[in-house]
Amino acid sequence: MKQSTICPKFEKAISLLSQRWMGLVIYQLLLGTQRFREIQSAIGISGKVLSDRLKDLESQGIVKREVFPKTPVIIEYSLTEKGYAMEPVLKEIENWSQLWVPSEDDSSSELN
Amino acid sequence: MKQSTICPKFEKAISLLSQRWMGLVIYQLLLGTQRFREIQSAIGISGKVLSDRLKDLESQGIVKREVFPKTPVIIEYSLTEKGYAMEPVLKEIENWSQLWVPSEDDSSSELN
Repeated sequence: MKQSTICPKFEKAISLLSQRWMGLVIYQLLLGTQRFREIQSAIGISGKVLSDRLKDLESQGIVKREVFPKTPVIIEYSLTEKGYAMEPVLKEIENWSQLWVPSEDDSSSELN
Repeated sequence: MKQSTICPKFEKAISLLSQRWMGLVIYQLLLGTQRFREIQSAIGISGKVLSDRLKDLESQGIVKREVFPKTPVIIEYSLTEKGYAMEPVLKEIENWSQLWVPSEDDSSSELN
């Protein structure tokens, strides 16, 4: 195998964002603490995949999961400091997309 | 299927970066015009995958491919304006990785 000359830390960050939905989940949580269903309906992701992504983000210290022992139990997800530190990345992706991604959906049938 | 509330342009940009190696190929080309082998050895990617990624990036107007009819033929790859506009995204990923990705490789056997 060839030895890459790219910084391993950078490679790890890129591989994090290379997992489908990762960027969208972090982006959604930049809006603040949310419950599972809120995140799910905002980004249109399956429950199974969202659950996997949240566990992964939690294990990497990017997302914090808090359980409130009420009836029914309340579980809230939020970004840690490490997670919020991703904001400039997501904002730059947003800027780039606004400038450079063509509006294929301009003619969609969505009614507001 | 649930309707996502996230901007479709942003989703497209995120899905571009969600393809493995995409970010690394763009990052490498920020250094300037390069030949196939240079990119390949810099990021340690298989020839087949790099070829696929470059074609995809070319079709999206992010990478420009130039053929110089010499013997042997010379083919060079560079970023278009749209591609260079990705620089702030990659720089922010780099910043984040330097601050937040732990150095697991500090104890590696690499000798400099």
